[in-house]
Amino acid sequence: MGTISRLCLLPLVVSVSLLMTSSVQGGKVLVFPVDGSHWVNMNLLIQTLHDRGHEITVVRTATSWYIKENAPHYHSITITLPEAIVIEDQDFFVTFLMRMIAIQRKGASLIGFLNFYWEMLSTLSKIHQQASLLAVEMFENKTLMQSLRDTHFDVVLLDPGLPAGVVVAHELKLPTIFNVRWVTSGEGHFVVAPSPTSYVPTSGYAASDKMTFVQRVLNLVHYVLNTCIDRFIVCPHYDKLVERYFGSAVNFYHLLQGADIWLMRVDFVLEFPRPTMPNIAYIGGFQCKPSKPLSSELEEFVQSSGEHGFILMSLGTLVKGLPLEITSEIAAAFAQIPQKVIWRHVGERPNNLGNNTLLVKWMPQNDLLGHPKIKAFVAHGGNNGIYESIYHGVPMICIPLLFDQFENVLRLEVRGAAKRVEVTKITQQNFLEAIQEVLHNPSYRTSIKRLSALHRDKPMHPLDTAVYWTEFLMRNKGASHLRTESYKMHWYAYYSVDVICFLFAVLLMLTAVVVGSLRFLCLRLCRRRKPKQA
Amino acid sequence: MGTISRLCLLPLVVSVSLLMTSSVQGGKVLVFPVDGSHWVNMNLLIQTLHDRGHEITVVRTATSWYIKENAPHYHSITITLPEAIVIEDQDFFVTFLMRMIAIQRKGASLIGFLNFYWEMLSTLSKIHQQASLLAVEMFENKTLMQSLRDTHFDVVLLDPGLPAGVVVAHELKLPTIFNVRWVTSGEGHFVVAPSPTSYVPTSGYAASDKMTFVQRVLNLVHYVLNTCIDRFIVCPHYDKLVERYFGSAVNFYHLLQGADIWLMRVDFVLEFPRPTMPNIAYIGGFQCKPSKPLSSELEEFVQSSGEHGFILMSLGTLVKGLPLEITSEIAAAFAQIPQKVIWRHVGERPNNLGNNTLLVKWMPQNDLLGHPKIKAFVAHGGNNGIYESIYHGVPMICIPLLFDQFENVLRLEVRGAAKRVEVTKITQQNFLEAIQEVLHNPSYRTSIKRLSALHRDKPMHPLDTAVYWTEFLMRNKGASHLRTESYKMHWYAYYSVDVICFLFAVLLMLTAVVVGSLRFLCLRLCRRRKPKQA
Repeated sequence: MGTISRLCLLPLVVSVSLLMTSSVQGGKVLVFPVDGSHWVNMNLLIQTLHDRGHEITVVRTATSWYIKENAPHYHSITITLPEAIVIEDQDFFVTFLMRMIAIQRKGASLIGFLNFYWEMLSTLSKIHQQASLLAVEMFENKTLMQSLRDTHFDVVLLDPGLPAGVVVAHELKLPTIFNVRWVTSGEGHFVVAPSPTSYVPTSGYAASDKMTFVQRVLNLVHYVLNTCIDRFIVCPHYDKLVERYFGSAVNFYHLLQGADIWLMRVDFVLEFPRPTMPNIAYIGGFQCKPSKPLSSELEEFVQSSGEHGFILMSLGTLVKGLPLEITSEIAAAFAQIPQKVIWRHVGERPNNLGNNTLLVKWMPQNDLLGHPKIKAFVAHGGNNGIYESIYHGVPMICIPLLFDQFENVLRLEVRGAAKRVEVTKITQQNFLEAIQEVLHNPSYRTSIKRLSALHRDKPMHPLDTAVYWTEFLMRNKGASHLRTESYKMHWYAYYSVDVICFLFAVLLMLTAVVVGSLRFLCLRLCRRRKPKQA
Repeated sequence: MGTISRLCLLPLVVSVSLLMTSSVQGGKVLVFPVDGSHWVNMNLLIQTLHDRGHEITVVRTATSWYIKENAPHYHSITITLPEAIVIEDQDFFVTFLMRMIAIQRKGASLIGFLNFYWEMLSTLSKIHQQASLLAVEMFENKTLMQSLRDTHFDVVLLDPGLPAGVVVAHELKLPTIFNVRWVTSGEGHFVVAPSPTSYVPTSGYAASDKMTFVQRVLNLVHYVLNTCIDRFIVCPHYDKLVERYFGSAVNFYHLLQGADIWLMRVDFVLEFPRPTMPNIAYIGGFQCKPSKPLSSELEEFVQSSGEHGFILMSLGTLVKGLPLEITSEIAAAFAQIPQKVIWRHVGERPNNLGNNTLLVKWMPQNDLLGHPKIKAFVAHGGNNGIYESIYHGVPMICIPLLFDQFENVLRLEVRGAAKRVEVTKITQQNFLEAIQEVLHNPSYRTSIKRLSALHRDKPMHPLDTAVYWTEFLMRNKGASHLRTESYKMHWYAYYSVDVICFLFAVLLMLTAVVVGSLRFLCLRLCRRRKPKQA
C-alpha cells in the first residue's frame, strides 16, 4: 500500500493564496437576523465581516432578546412593532416545551393533542405576521427607507427563517445572501433544490435516506403537510405584504427562491447526501474553532477527574431547564459514574446531585469540548452543539427536545456517533445505560473521530466560505449565473406535464391514424374479394 | 455607494493556507484516460499529481494516438486489443466531419441521412465494444491483475467517456474519481443528478435553459433518444462484461453512478445553472493559466499589427483541416481586414491567403490568447478553447463542427460573448461580417470580460480543486458521505410512483367508505319514513 503521510506541500497553498488575495473592503451589509440560537450564528458571521472592514447594519425589533441595540461591530436599526406582538418573552419556548413534554409524558387525548398542534400553528402564524409587520413598519417609514437607499448597501444578508428582509431587499434592488437552515416553515433545500421525497427526509420527519415503503409514505405525507402549512399559514402574511407594496405581478415565493447565494448551515458529514444547486455554499460548522485553555478553576475541576475524564451536559440557548422530575433522574444517573460532570443548568437545582457534578449557569462549551479529558457530551441535538461535537470528535448522548433536534440526532445515530434518550421516557436507569454505552463501546468514539476528520477535510474553513461568497456578491453585484430561474415556470411546465400530455396525444393520434388506415385497407381488400366469391 | 476596492486582506488567506497544508504524499493513482482532446485535460491533471509526489500509472491501448508509452510523469500499462479494432486512425474524425459537412452542405435524402446516422451509431457501439474489450484483456491477464492488486493503488482516476475503468476499479475495490464531461453517450450530470428536461438542455440539443414549448418537446424527445442509445447501444457492452466477471447481482450502470467524486469539466459562467450533487466538484477551465511571453518571431509578427491587433484561428486537436472550398472563403475574408491573423492550419493551403495571414502547424494558443494585442478568437467551440478564451477575456467567432461544440457555442451566444457562423453555410461575406461585428460591437468584449471576471472569482483554482479531491479520496479511502445511493432504488420507488398510487388507493377507499356509509344512512332514513307515509 502506498505510504500516505501528511506533509506540508506548498504549491497548492500558494496558488490558493494568490486567488484569495483580491478581496473587497468597505462593503456595506444590511442584515435581517432571526433571534435566539440563530443569532449566535449570524452574529459570528457579521463579527467576521466587520473584522474584514465591512460596515454592518442590523435590523432588530425593540423587543429583541439577544440582538442588542449597541454593539462595537454593527450599527442597528430598531423597529418598534405595534402592540399585537406575540413573542416578547424568551421563556416562550420553555413554556412550549414543558407543555409538549407534559402531553407526551402523561398522555393526552387526540382532541388535546390536536388542540395543542393547532395552537402551535397559530403561534407560527403570529410569528410570521410579526415578521411581516416589521417590513410594513419599515416601508411606512419614508425617512428610514430613503436613508437606506442613500446608504447604498452592497448586499442584504438575512436568515430566511423569518424572511421579511427578502421583501425589503427587493425594494432596495440589492443582491441577497441567505444564512440559512430553515425557510418559512421548512428546511431550506426544499425551497431551492429538487428534493425527491423517496430518499430526502422532509423537515419534521425523522428518517434516514434509506426508507422503507411505510416511511416513504409518511415522508410524502409530511411533505404535503409542510407545503400546506407554508402556503396557507405562513406565506399569506408575506403575500399580502408583497401585494400591498409591489402589486400582483410580484410573487413572494419567487423572491424567496431568487436569493443569489444560499449559505447553508449544513455539512454532509451530518446531512444525508441530496441534490443541491450551484448557488448553495455549505457552511455547516462554520462556528467551529480550536479550543482555548480553560480558567484555572475549571481546569482544576477537569483535571481532578483523573483517568476517568469528564462529561459535559448542556441543552442549548433556548431551553434553560427541564422539569425537576426529569433532572432528578439525570442527576441520580450522573452520581453513579466515576467521571466528573459539568452541567449547564439554570432551572431548579436537583437535590440528589452527586459530588462529581458541577452545575454552572454558563460554560466555555467549545473549550471544554476541545479538552483532552472530555469523554462525552450530553446535549439536546441543536445544530450548533452537534457541529462543535463533530469538530472536536466527542461522542454524544442526545436528548432531543424541539424542532429539528430529533432529525439531527437521528443523523448522528445512523452514523454511530450518538445514543439517544427520549426526554419523555427518561429514567435514572436508561440514562445511565446510555452514558455507559457511549463511554465504554469504542465504536461511538471511532465513528465521531471519522466524522471529525471528514468535516475538517475541506479546501476552505466554512466561515471563510461564508465570507467569500458575501464578498463575491459585493464584487460582482449578484450571482445570477449560478441561480436558475426555473422556479418562475408554471408547475406543469417545470414537471413537463404539458409536454408529456402533448407527446401522449401525438402518440394516440398516430396510433389512431395507423389503425384507421389499416382498417380502411382491410375493408377495401375484403370488399374486393367478396364480389369474386359471389 | 460603498467604496469597493480590491485589497490584499490577509486573515482569510491565512486560515485557508492552514487548512490546505495537510496533504498526501506518495499516493498511487491508476488512470484510465480517453484519447484525443480528452487526453490533453487528463494529462495536465496527472502531470500536476505527479508534481505533487504521486505515482501515476496510465492504462493505454497499443494503438493510442496521443497517449505515449513512455513519459517522465507516468508509468504505462499497454493493452493490445484483438484485431477487431475500429478506430486505429486519428484521421477518423476528419473523415467523419467531411462526410457530415457534405451531407449538410449539398443536401441529402432522408434515407441518406438516416444511413449516415445509423453508421454513426454503429461506430459508437464499436468504440464502446473496444473499450469493454480493454477490460476483458485486463481481466484475462491474471499476472497483470495480480500485479495491479499488489501495487495497492489508492484511487482510480478515469474519464467515463469510455468507462471500462469503472469495472476494473470495482474488481480492485478502489475508490473512483471521474474527470468528466461525457459519460457513455450523454452529458455527465444526467447520470448522477436530477435533470428536469423543462430547463436543463439535453446533450445533443442546442437550447438555452429558457425554452419555448416546442423546444421543451424536442428536448424531452432528445432525452428519450439519448437514453435509448445509452441503454440499447452503449451499455450492453459493459453489461456483458459485468455479467461475465461479477454475475447478475452487479449492475454496470450502478457502478457508473457510484463513483465517489465527479470532477466535472464545467463552470457555470458557461453552463446554465442546474441541479447538482454534493460529490460533484466543478473544474471547468482547470487548464487555464496566465500566458507566457511569445517567441521573438511570433512577438514580432503580432507587434507588426499595430493598433489593429491580431486575430487567432484554430479548430482544435481532432480536426486538422476543412475542405478547400471553405478555407478559401475564410482566407478571402481574412485578407480584407486590417488585423493580422494567426491561423493554425494543417490541411491544403488556400491560394488566396492575404499578406496579413500567417499559417502555422502549431501555436502557443494560451500565450497568444493572453497577449494584449489579441482582438478575437476564431474557434470551433471545443470545451478547452472556450474556457481559455473566457479566462483571457477574448471575444469569439465560432464555427462549431462536431459533438458538444454546437451546445457550447450556443451558451456563449446567449451570454453575448460570441458570434456563430455555420460551417455548412460559410461564405467570404458572412464570415467577414461576423468578424467585423465581434471586432467593432463592444458588447462582445464587455460580455466576455464579465465572464472572465466571474470565472476567475473562485475560492480555489479549478486545477487545485481537482487535486484536492483526488487527494481527499487517498486520505479518506472514498467519499461515501457525499454520494447518494438513491440510484439503487427501483425507478417507481425513486419517483414515488408506488407511494402516490398507494395514497391514491387509500383516498379512493376512504371516499368509497364515506359515500357507502352516507348511502346506507340515507336508505335507512328513507325506509323509516316510507312506512309513516304509507
